[in-house]
This record gives sequence, C-alpha cells and structure tokens, in this order.
Amino acid sequence: MQARQARIESALDRVLPAADIAPQRLHEAMRYAVLGGGKRIRPLLAYAGGEATGAPFEAADRVGAAVELIHVYSLVHDDLPCMDDDVLRRGKPTVHVQYDEATALLVGDSLQSLAFGVLAGVSLPDAAVLVDMLARLATAAGSRGMAGGQAVDLDSLGKPLSLPELEFMHVHKTGALIRASVLLGAQCGTASDPARLEALDRYAKCIGLAFQVVDDVLDATASTATLGKTAGKDADANKPTYVSVLGVEAARRFAGELLDEALGSLDKLDGQGERLAQLGRFIVTREF
Amino acid sequence: MQARQARIESALDRVLPAADIAPQRLHEAMRYAVLGGGKRIRPLLAYAGGEATGAPFEAADRVGAAVELIHVYSLVHDDLPCMDDDVLRRGKPTVHVQYDEATALLVGDSLQSLAFGVLAGVSLPDAAVLVDMLARLATAAGSRGMAGGQAVDLDSLGKPLSLPELEFMHVHKTGALIRASVLLGAQCGTASDPARLEALDRYAKCIGLAFQVVDDVLDATASTATLGKTAGKDADANKPTYVSVLGVEAARRFAGELLDEALGSLDKLDGQGERLAQLGRFIVTREF
Repeated sequence: MQARQARIESALDRVLPAADIAPQRLHEAMRYAVLGGGKRIRPLLAYAGGEATGAPFEAADRVGAAVELIHVYSLVHDDLPCMDDDVLRRGKPTVHVQYDEATALLVGDSLQSLAFGVLAGVSLPDAAVLVDMLARLATAAGSRGMAGGQAVDLDSLGKPLSLPELEFMHVHKTGALIRASVLLGAQCGTASDPARLEALDRYAKCIGLAFQVVDDVLDATASTATLGKTAGKDADANKPTYVSVLGVEAARRFAGELLDEALGSLDKLDGQGERLAQLGRFIVTREF
Repeated sequence: MQARQARIESALDRVLPAADIAPQRLHEAMRYAVLGGGKRIRPLLAYAGGEATGAPFEAADRVGAAVELIHVYSLVHDDLPCMDDDVLRRGKPTVHVQYDEATALLVGDSLQSLAFGVLAGVSLPDAAVLVDMLARLATAAGSRGMAGGQAVDLDSLGKPLSLPELEFMHVHKTGALIRASVLLGAQCGTASDPARLEALDRYAKCIGLAFQVVDDVLDATASTATLGKTAGKDADANKPTYVSVLGVEAARRFAGELLDEALGSLDKLDGQGERLAQLGRFIVTREF
C-alpha cells in the first residue's frame, strides 16, 4: 500500500503544473492542496480495480490522479467559510487559511478542470471507452453525484434524517466518487464481461457507503490529532450521521455487514480481487 | 442570431437536470443561473465554428451548451463575496443573493462537471477527436486558461499593469474559452486541414481578446441597466483594464484592429467564415 501511495504521489506531482509556471501563486496553492497528505483511498481503489482487469499501471496512474484531484477539489471547497468553515485538513491549515478564500475557490475550480484533462490523457486502445470514462467521472462529480450529496448535506443540517435519507446523502456525497474510482480503474483493463463489471460495481457501492459510515464513527470517536482534521464536527454542527441515527456500535456493525457484502461480490473475480479485498478491510478497520 | 440563441436556450434546458430531480434546490439554482439570460456569445461562436467545417447542428448544440455551462459557472463563482462580490448578473440577482453562498458554490462546481458530461455526449465518428476536445475544454477552463486568468486578475487589483501583462490576463480569463468555443465547434466537422484550423484559431484568438477590450470599454461607458450587470466596477475596484491603460478611444481603436485581423484570417476559409465574420462584427460593435 505504501508503494502505491508513493506511486500516486509521484503521478500527482507530474500532472500538477509546476509552481514556477504563471499564475505562480495559484499553481503553488494547487500543489499545497494536493501533495503530501491524505490516505489516497480513491487512487488505491483505482489501482485495485485496474488490477482486477489487467489494466496497465500507467493508465491507472492517471485514473488515480484524476479521482484524487476531484476529491481534493471537493475538500478545498467544503472547507470554505460558507460551507464547513474548517481550518485544518490533512494535518495542515486549509487552503483558504494558508492563502485566501478567493484563491481556495480558484484552486478547487482548477483542480476539477485538471482532473478531466488528466483523465482525457489516458492512453487506451479504444477511445470510445475513454469517452465513456470521462462521462462517468462527470456524473460521479456533479449534481447527481458528489456535489449533489454535498447539497443534501447542507440542507440536512439540524434536521433529523431517516436512514434512507441518510443513505441517499452518503451514497452521493462519498459513494459516487469511490464507486467511480474502482470502475474507472477497471475500465482501463479488459473487463468487457458484464458479470465481472457488475461484481466490481457491487463491491464499489458497498465499500463507498462503508467508507462514510466509518468516517462518521471516527468523527465521533477519534481525536483531531489522529484524524488530521477537526474531530467531533458532525455533532457540533448537529449534522445527521450514521452515529446520530444508529449509535456507534450499530454503525460499526453496519460497516462490517457492508464489508462482508463487498467481499462476497469479489468471489466472481476468480482470485483477481485480492487487492480490492485488502483495501476493503483497510477502509472498514482504519483508525484515521 | 435570435434563432440560434433560441436553439442554444433549448439545448441548455435539455441538458440541465429538471428542477424536480433530487437534490431539487441545487437543480433549481443551476437552472436559475443558466437559463433566460446572456448573449450566448460562446455558443454562437461554437455554431459558427461548426458551420465553417460542416459540423452537424446536433454536435454544435452540445459543444455550445458545454462552453456556456463553463462560462456560467465562472460567472457564479466570480460574483461570490470572496471574489467580485456582485449582486446583479444578466439583469437578475446573482445566485448567492437569490439562494445562498454555499449553494452558489455548488452550482458553479456542478455546472463545471455537467459541461464535461455534456461534451462527452457529443456523437462523432471518431471518438479520439472527442477525447481531444475534452482535453481542450479542460485546458481552456483550468489554471492555464480561464481560472488562471481569474487568479491573475485577483492579484492585479490596485496594481498598475503593463500592456503585455494586461494581455496575458485577458488572453487567459476571457480569451481561452472563446477560442475553445470556435475550435470545439470546428472539430465537430471535417476540418482536418491544418491551414484551415490555424486560420480559425487566429480568428478566435483575436476575437477573444477583442471581446474583453470591448467589455472594458462598456464597463467604463455603459449603464448598469444596459449591461444587466453592475457598470463602472473596474474603476471602483481600481482594476487595471484596457481603458485604464490605453484610455477609451485607444481601446476602441485596438478592438477595431483586432477585428480587422480576425476578419483577415477568415479569407482562408473559402467563404465558409461568413457567420464568424458577422459574429466578430457584433462582438466589437455591441453596446451591452
């Protein structure tokens, strides 16, 4: 996992504009936001998805970088004063604290554009598959995916949510991009077999939701120092979470059930899902 | 021109999610931001670029919608309090005034994703051309294009800029997307002839810069009612513009020279650049 994390760090470093290219301050802030932090869960899932279909590493590098750029853009915007108003991210001051709000806005905007540019640079034998991948990323990031989940999240502050409403929010906010990470990685390989892609998709859906359930648990139980971001924020903001709806223990059990379902769906991959299984276990048992 | 504007309005209406699809408030705000306003210069340029290369109208519809979505996202973010802090756009309250800041942020973010999704949906015989177009849009929108120009704009407030610095800013902030609009439209047709594409590119570069020069002149000379956005903002913000650097008359002359150069480059299109010529004249002589 550490080797893969180093590999994606290097891929991100390569695709980000150098800090001495104009506009320098923006490029420096983009690099500050992206490099040197984060678990890189989404790129790891992209690599593992690619491994399950024999994708070349070079393609998975770009897919991993693209999904991480989308993820980081969402963090930078989410931390802005008009959203979660947070000062700490990945153990460092957030971008608007380190630079300023306008720069943080443009950093997020530019990272989103860059993500599509990086993905468009993947070299695949069939360009039509790549077009389909670009459309998938757009859907996962947009108003019917991640950004839509954020909007529901905003509207839900201080409101009690039912379990289905909470699931809708998280399936969009976190799940859509995590799911896309696995599938985009897999699309770089030779997985034309629909049963195989369906198994991957089911894995990805379960892991995407499990990731968020565990995030909710950690927000309630771990320290700011361990997380590298402000802990206890959800309760402070009176935000509905799996912990507020189910309680810590039941939320943990739910994450375990989702993991079991995800691992079960990997049976159809003839042993090529080992890395996905490892990552799934890591995502659910992680402590930060 | 009005028929084309009606056509792009209808294309935008089709590609935007319906306001009754969840998350409803976000989708309603996206429609509020995009529909019913604007000169639609970029889509008009995409249609005209497509006409110069025999592109199908259906492809140009999507290209036009995509570039307009990028443009509108940039306006929504640009109007935010941490940027230009403006309350009026296209004759209506800006999105953060009508809704709230967080929603305006997510509207812009979602429109950017949607733009790439809409462009990925263009139907072309060669998918590799479409991948190239998606990469072009990403570059035009990102830190080395439009968003980069915004960053330079921010950094330049209150500073005297030389003419080359001013040109760098505008070539990025406005020019990059205008240039991409023409070329993306043209790429949907059969313009594989490099001399033809080069002529279009030269036209697009000149018109992109001319557009901004005229914008600077209008900001200094037209009324808020005519513009549908706050007039006199540049001087109030002590922002370097072509008017502050050259004066109104010389700026007007410069726009005229750029138009002449743009029109001259159309000679190479064997009469297929008539619509581009009309649009160029409109852009430079417009009064709003």
